[in-house]
Amino acid sequence: MSKEITSRKQDYSQWYNDLIIKGSLADYSQVRGCMVIKPYGFALWENMRDQLDKMFKDTGHVNAYFPLFIPKSYLSKEAAHVEGFAKECAVVTHYRLMSDPNGGGGLVVDPDARLDEELIVRPTSETIIWNTYRDWIQSYRDLPLLINQWANVVRWEMRTRLFLRTVEFLWQEGHTAHATAPEAIEEAEKMLHLYADFVENWMALPVIKGLKTESERFAGAVNTYCIEALMQDGKALQAGTSHFLGQNFAKAFEVKFSDKDNKLDYVWATSWGVSTRMIGGLVMAHGDDEGLILPPRIAPVQVVIVPIFKGAEQKFRIDEKVNDLMKQLKSAGIRIKYDDSEHSRPGWKFAEYEMKGVPLRVAIGLRDLENNSVEIARRDTREKMTVPFEGLTNRITALLEEIQQSMFNKAKSFRDAHIIKADTWIEFEEALEGEGGFVLAHWDGTIETEAEIKEKSKATIRCIPLDNIREDGVCILTGKPSSQRVLFARAY
Amino acid sequence: MSKEITSRKQDYSQWYNDLIIKGSLADYSQVRGCMVIKPYGFALWENMRDQLDKMFKDTGHVNAYFPLFIPKSYLSKEAAHVEGFAKECAVVTHYRLMSDPNGGGGLVVDPDARLDEELIVRPTSETIIWNTYRDWIQSYRDLPLLINQWANVVRWEMRTRLFLRTVEFLWQEGHTAHATAPEAIEEAEKMLHLYADFVENWMALPVIKGLKTESERFAGAVNTYCIEALMQDGKALQAGTSHFLGQNFAKAFEVKFSDKDNKLDYVWATSWGVSTRMIGGLVMAHGDDEGLILPPRIAPVQVVIVPIFKGAEQKFRIDEKVNDLMKQLKSAGIRIKYDDSEHSRPGWKFAEYEMKGVPLRVAIGLRDLENNSVEIARRDTREKMTVPFEGLTNRITALLEEIQQSMFNKAKSFRDAHIIKADTWIEFEEALEGEGGFVLAHWDGTIETEAEIKEKSKATIRCIPLDNIREDGVCILTGKPSSQRVLFARAY
Repeated sequence: MSKEITSRKQDYSQWYNDLIIKGSLADYSQVRGCMVIKPYGFALWENMRDQLDKMFKDTGHVNAYFPLFIPKSYLSKEAAHVEGFAKECAVVTHYRLMSDPNGGGGLVVDPDARLDEELIVRPTSETIIWNTYRDWIQSYRDLPLLINQWANVVRWEMRTRLFLRTVEFLWQEGHTAHATAPEAIEEAEKMLHLYADFVENWMALPVIKGLKTESERFAGAVNTYCIEALMQDGKALQAGTSHFLGQNFAKAFEVKFSDKDNKLDYVWATSWGVSTRMIGGLVMAHGDDEGLILPPRIAPVQVVIVPIFKGAEQKFRIDEKVNDLMKQLKSAGIRIKYDDSEHSRPGWKFAEYEMKGVPLRVAIGLRDLENNSVEIARRDTREKMTVPFEGLTNRITALLEEIQQSMFNKAKSFRDAHIIKADTWIEFEEALEGEGGFVLAHWDGTIETEAEIKEKSKATIRCIPLDNIREDGVCILTGKPSSQRVLFARAY
Repeated sequence: MSKEITSRKQDYSQWYNDLIIKGSLADYSQVRGCMVIKPYGFALWENMRDQLDKMFKDTGHVNAYFPLFIPKSYLSKEAAHVEGFAKECAVVTHYRLMSDPNGGGGLVVDPDARLDEELIVRPTSETIIWNTYRDWIQSYRDLPLLINQWANVVRWEMRTRLFLRTVEFLWQEGHTAHATAPEAIEEAEKMLHLYADFVENWMALPVIKGLKTESERFAGAVNTYCIEALMQDGKALQAGTSHFLGQNFAKAFEVKFSDKDNKLDYVWATSWGVSTRMIGGLVMAHGDDEGLILPPRIAPVQVVIVPIFKGAEQKFRIDEKVNDLMKQLKSAGIRIKYDDSEHSRPGWKFAEYEMKGVPLRVAIGLRDLENNSVEIARRDTREKMTVPFEGLTNRITALLEEIQQSMFNKAKSFRDAHIIKADTWIEFEEALEGEGGFVLAHWDGTIETEAEIKEKSKATIRCIPLDNIREDGVCILTGKPSSQRVLFARAY
């Protein structure tokens, strides 16, 4: 095998990078903290994006596009928002380069081309969008406004990781405007459930839905809803957030509407987003030491067909059979690749497509032709089976569905086995130090205690689960009374 | 009618802006030179993008994503390229803001967060992409590399116009790598033809395919192919370009491959792009004094249905009929909107959808129910007709195709009537000063003469048409010999 992957046991973090680089999802770029999403990785993102886009449109949302640049002064208009983002902004200060007057043939920034007001490369678009909504919203008839944007955003993170945390990333950001608080809350919750539906049923990744604590809220939100997934190393990953913004941005940007009784009021808002970060979660939750394992519903290639032959005559006979099969699979809507390249041997190809996480591999050689069957290998279980040609398309369709379900079940069993209740500080630490995972524990509800727990254990409150059971108890750190457990974990 | 449009005669440029703003395609933003693409305009762009994307994929291209930022030094690596772009670059110099130490609650750029090397917001991505291709290409087996990117780009233009010339715009940029010059030239030409196919058959806009002169070439190209369309004011619009880049970028970024004989050579390149600018051309070529006219194949809404009723009982009966019709139209793949809002009267709605350029309007009232027919109005000809309910879906499908074809024919007749041959400087000036249009004239082939003609007439050489007939003549300005006419026009 040409490409060696570090095992999870040996170095989990290196294993993760290996899967992404050697699985051809992405590459490092020479721009600090930015990555190149390679065609295979981008095809995966396209499948995720297209499905999400369909779900957004099916729930009445439309797409639009707002400027990349945000005037610096906009950021300051919402106090909590600026606090959250000012420290990680890429700032455009000039609009022209010139030849270096000191010679050398290089370029320097033209000092005469300084902007009067610096522009920020959007870290998120609440400010520019609410500044625009002021012109779009006058009356209750203009509401609700249900707009989504697919865009690139920039946050100047100091420590970056492929997909999980990059300076530039791709995402969608929904920004909706409503006439009442309950409607906005309903929207924020609806989008959270939509995200959970997508992540569970398309990415095969079980999530816990919950509310963030005050200190983990989005900068400018009244409430932040989130979905949290568990990775194989026992750390949590926030896979998406949906915010109820109250009237904070409407007030900051003076967006008012007149209601049915002609009374003026500020507009109620939500925003919600998921990003290419989800791909990082996908890799870490499903992959194994042989490479990626991609869920069939979003895999760029669902079935790879590899011919086993010697010489042109054998190839010709296999091609005939495969062309027939491809036609059937395509008309069943299955994404297939026939890798008949002669540059590499079947064994190399097998390893390559295992690395890339293609759900099913079909191998077909002369003996298979004689037996009227093929050999199918499942990527997730690595099971091999001999399957007759007759009814193959139906069998493959069923297998893909089975893999999708089985990947979810496996991830869910793992996740469920890693939700531990801790009633004391010692139990809490033991849970984290063992295999990790989610720890359900009582907390006294104060920011100070939350900060101290984080400081001592490196675990944060991932969320207060939406379906939480009320239960009296005492805070694991302070012993003060608590009425419910919250979900702790170390997290990405 | 609530929205007044300036007529073309009165003020062509204001008419153009009115169509875009009042037709809900886009809005000005408060960021200099940047616009907001509104949901209706973005749905139009999505239809254009999705069709182009399908055509790219059908011809073997795949999508990827490269960083937004380009290190300043990359730009200098290709001499002509830097010359073309250095003067219109947005430059990121810092990565953090801080509270103003002089108080006042504002934000200032943190002087301690200055980048070692400034980053340019990509004006186009040849440099960052070829810097990446160096790692991706070793052998002829890695070629051709056929990659496209959908992205936002920034060029700091001083004079901007909605869609036609904005500081930020959306586009696609293809960047391909080949083993030989003929293969790269073939690719550049293939993509030019693909663009022409798209613009003519989807946007209903006839184009002339040609080669740019040296002075109009893309910065860094050996040859630039283009498609040129004619607007109603007699000015030309470049709707897309495809470049044969030779080995220029491969040499600048040291991208070599070993061929079948194990000999090292630089890789051959193309790049090609179309942008949201095309929407400007669409507006200007087809619109009239009542608003936009959108070609059915890319119109966000192809058919709008407006009910005419008094009271709930009438509405109920119409709804029943319309629901039935909508089901049929939807299953025929037609994009429809049923505007039964009670906020506005039918007359207002009629004007609104004329403004928005919806190809067909179906009005349905009580008398129509009795007669088992509807009233259909064509946006392009403003013709009205009474059409029986029976077979309505087929009739609408046929009408949409007819409108598509008829819009193309109309634009083509106009264009063809505005291609004038000029043999002397006086004829040349007269042609430009009259109704404008394309002027076919002899030119002596020098950069100097081209510049002087531009200076004197404000007309530029749009292209040397690909299907040009060789013909001896003399340059309209210098009287020097010439072997072919070239296509002049004043242009956007």
